[in-house]
Amino acid sequence: MSHTLSDIAQKISATLIHPSADNSTLTSHATNVNLDSTLITGLATLANAQAGQIAFLANSKYQQQLLTTKASAVIVSAEAAKSCPVSALVMDNPYMGYAILANLLDTTPAAAEGIHASAVISPTATLGENVSIGANAVIESGVKLADNVCIGAGCFIGKNAVIGESTKLWANSSVYHSVVIGKHCLIQANTVIGSDGFGYAPVPGQYKWHKIPQLGSVIIGDHVEIGASTTIDRGALDNTEIKDGVILDNQIQIAHNVIIGENTAMAACSVIAGSTVIGKNCTIAGLVGINGHINIADNCVFTGMSMVTKSIKTAGAYSSGTPVAPNSEWHKTNARVKRLDSLNKRVKALEKQLNK
Amino acid sequence: MSHTLSDIAQKISATLIHPSADNSTLTSHATNVNLDSTLITGLATLANAQAGQIAFLANSKYQQQLLTTKASAVIVSAEAAKSCPVSALVMDNPYMGYAILANLLDTTPAAAEGIHASAVISPTATLGENVSIGANAVIESGVKLADNVCIGAGCFIGKNAVIGESTKLWANSSVYHSVVIGKHCLIQANTVIGSDGFGYAPVPGQYKWHKIPQLGSVIIGDHVEIGASTTIDRGALDNTEIKDGVILDNQIQIAHNVIIGENTAMAACSVIAGSTVIGKNCTIAGLVGINGHINIADNCVFTGMSMVTKSIKTAGAYSSGTPVAPNSEWHKTNARVKRLDSLNKRVKALEKQLNK
Amino acid sequence: MSHTLSDIAQKISATLIHPSADNSTLTSHATNVNLDSTLITGLATLANAQAGQIAFLANSKYQQQLLTTKASAVIVSAEAAKSCPVSALVMDNPYMGYAILANLLDTTPAAAEGIHASAVISPTATLGENVSIGANAVIESGVKLADNVCIGAGCFIGKNAVIGESTKLWANSSVYHSVVIGKHCLIQANTVIGSDGFGYAPVPGQYKWHKIPQLGSVIIGDHVEIGASTTIDRGALDNTEIKDGVILDNQIQIAHNVIIGENTAMAACSVIAGSTVIGKNCTIAGLVGINGHINIADNCVFTGMSMVTKSIKTAGAYSSGTPVAPNSEWHKTNARVKRLDSLNKRVKALEKQLNK
Repeated sequence: MSHTLSDIAQKISATLIHPSADNSTLTSHATNVNLDSTLITGLATLANAQAGQIAFLANSKYQQQLLTTKASAVIVSAEAAKSCPVSALVMDNPYMGYAILANLLDTTPAAAEGIHASAVISPTATLGENVSIGANAVIESGVKLADNVCIGAGCFIGKNAVIGESTKLWANSSVYHSVVIGKHCLIQANTVIGSDGFGYAPVPGQYKWHKIPQLGSVIIGDHVEIGASTTIDRGALDNTEIKDGVILDNQIQIAHNVIIGENTAMAACSVIAGSTVIGKNCTIAGLVGINGHINIADNCVFTGMSMVTKSIKTAGAYSSGTPVAPNSEWHKTNARVKRLDSLNKRVKALEKQLNK
Repeated sequence: MSHTLSDIAQKISATLIHPSADNSTLTSHATNVNLDSTLITGLATLANAQAGQIAFLANSKYQQQLLTTKASAVIVSAEAAKSCPVSALVMDNPYMGYAILANLLDTTPAAAEGIHASAVISPTATLGENVSIGANAVIESGVKLADNVCIGAGCFIGKNAVIGESTKLWANSSVYHSVVIGKHCLIQANTVIGSDGFGYAPVPGQYKWHKIPQLGSVIIGDHVEIGASTTIDRGALDNTEIKDGVILDNQIQIAHNVIIGENTAMAACSVIAGSTVIGKNCTIAGLVGINGHINIADNCVFTGMSMVTKSIKTAGAYSSGTPVAPNSEWHKTNARVKRLDSLNKRVKALEKQLNK
Repeated sequence: MSHTLSDIAQKISATLIHPSADNSTLTSHATNVNLDSTLITGLATLANAQAGQIAFLANSKYQQQLLTTKASAVIVSAEAAKSCPVSALVMDNPYMGYAILANLLDTTPAAAEGIHASAVISPTATLGENVSIGANAVIESGVKLADNVCIGAGCFIGKNAVIGESTKLWANSSVYHSVVIGKHCLIQANTVIGSDGFGYAPVPGQYKWHKIPQLGSVIIGDHVEIGASTTIDRGALDNTEIKDGVILDNQIQIAHNVIIGENTAMAACSVIAGSTVIGKNCTIAGLVGINGHINIADNCVFTGMSMVTKSIKTAGAYSSGTPVAPNSEWHKTNARVKRLDSLNKRVKALEKQLNK
């Protein structure tokens, strides 16, 4: 699958200009569209691109690499195009151009093709058109897989789970009974959806923790992406909910009855404790811990390793934690912080002495 | 499966009173037990319960929802019963009532039913009465599964592992060779028990780390619960041990030779490094990190994201970390902490000046 | 499989001395080699060893246990040999002696033996000599497994993945398409290699995040070890790279385009964000978070729960975070830190007052 450079300009709505042209005068791709029949076979970084490949410049940090790139063309802003030594695909948002082109030139194989003979599919499961189920996957009774659903090898889909149109799961993921997943979702390998929430009542006696069956489920919206080895627990009574457009990275933990609002993004290894409600369009970086039974407003940003103990009512960026210091300096700082009380007393004594 | 309201009152040992009655005078369920034949089909939260469902009030935060609930009855304390607009199931510990009732009305399916034809079971494995093994599970040689054990689809049970009576594993979990799991345990999906501990000796040469085979195992007691995608490493020489009644949430990491005392509870994503011994009845919140080769006393509580570097000899609640602040304030605080040394010097100078 | 004590002395290059001998005079094993035919059947800790087993003393913390050990012999330093009540295997580095002996007496079974009939292997996959593939494993088209590769039960090996000689994967791991793994690697259960990196372009409209296909792969060197439930994402365009000799513990998260240098060791649950380059011979303890797009010099050490936000240019030990304190003290410290600004102002006022 290859495309001419002119084709690509058109498909990503970029203006194609050539290095020989006066770069300061941009000409619309409409007039140039048939001018460049260079065959493009792939995408690469500025540093590694070869002839036949397209690179992009979206982060000024890599500006220097533009000057020596061997790419056949580079997706750039109008400003950067001025110093582009090869053909330039000029657009306002080069990162978006790269995203569109990556989809056009996508070489990712399907997680499964057709229905493998070794898959174990209950006769009471309902399969839409063009469903794929990988080798050794297990589809339990009452499951509903809509059109174009793709279930990777070794996945387990529990009783009565419902998976919407064009949703794809990679290998060895486990989806428990009655979980509902929307349309156009993408779930990476070894992820678990619908495991029991961590609910116990303390009781007297030899075994302290009385298990509380988790009778809710997990409801996942449309266009949700979930990384590898992420776990999303089912609700205790009501459901755990992941709304439309949410993106979750790897090894995230979502406890029972959490609700995550539309289009919120969470990076790897972050944790949300039970019954917390996260707003829309939030950005949660990696290794963030969010307490249970709190509410986070829409449009909040938490930087990496933040510790969120209370509800946040106002949109904005929030942080906690201290960046690393050389080990000896860190020891000193911790000792100083421990002596803050004494420092405070000394200041108080001085104030008294001066103002008596 | 449905029950009358009176049945339920009896089963959870609650006093059933009706909204029409004078709520300040509680009548024992013994005298009322046949009075209410309302059919109860499920449990729900105060906010979402419908007719035919029972709700509960155990957290005063939700008191307001009691007033408008559509539940057929609510499990409440005697105090809360006074403002209950529907039938009240009165008991001292409504949360425990909810826990018992959730078990009574539990709809969780079995992780597997019967022995699936696609399961691969070594002829030298020993299976008790009424064992269930899901599709595509693999049971290796010498494995012993006691009565009523239930192995989910796609699980791997390594050579000579022993699993006690009525223990259940959900799908795609991996249990290595020689691991011993007790009775009445519940293990969620994609969990790993008995993987190699992280043990290497540094050596000169191209490859620095000389692997040390991990020759111990993992011994898990009775009534232990383990969440999804948790990992428990086997010991280097002695065993890693999880004692009776311990409950572990999702994505917990237990390193080699850790010992966790009876009834300790650990929330998601906490980590215990090698050879550490945790006492009984401890409560470890989420994302806590506990150093290796230390001892934690019984009845310790660690709040979320705590960093435990040294042995703790006294029961009590321990914490570390700072909650999030708005990003700009956080930057300022970090800068101030860095300047603590200079502040200390300035105070010293003032003291000298004043007291010379 | 058993060995005489003299055999073992020779194999680990230790000097065997007997408790009856004058311990202060060490005699070389060359002269003693046939003197002790005690049969050794295993390794154990000082505290738990029985007759027929060998223990070792490498950490002075366990010195006391030497005095009462029931081991047939103990691997010790020359100094510790003086107080060894049983036969001593004397060497400069007893821990290394233990490591070699553990390999000699290793009882770990293979992750798979032979090619199981239930494995699903594409006819276009290429298998070397002596390859083992466990039950219900799935090997997709174009996969290349070199000699002595061992794939555990239920593993998924995606299209065109290449796995080098003698590499072993435990059960239920998922290796995506085109991933390359070197020779003599060991990968524990339920690990994921080659899942999509977390790359999205924000777009206007109902669904905010436009998926960017991840077209790079993961390249893993030789003699790399990877723990259970670790996740390593494939690169966006270039590859994610784990160099020779790296050891990764359980539940580690490696984002797209990270490069980890030779022989670096990472403990459990640490996280490296996208495009970061880690040097050689680094030691990264547990629960460490490392920011994206930064560079870490060779020979850096990060203590547990460190937060690494910027590039580190100098080798050395780095730390952050505060160890736990009793909960009430922690509250006070946090309050004092919050009031640092006011304390600073008070000191400033005192300085003004004194120096006006």
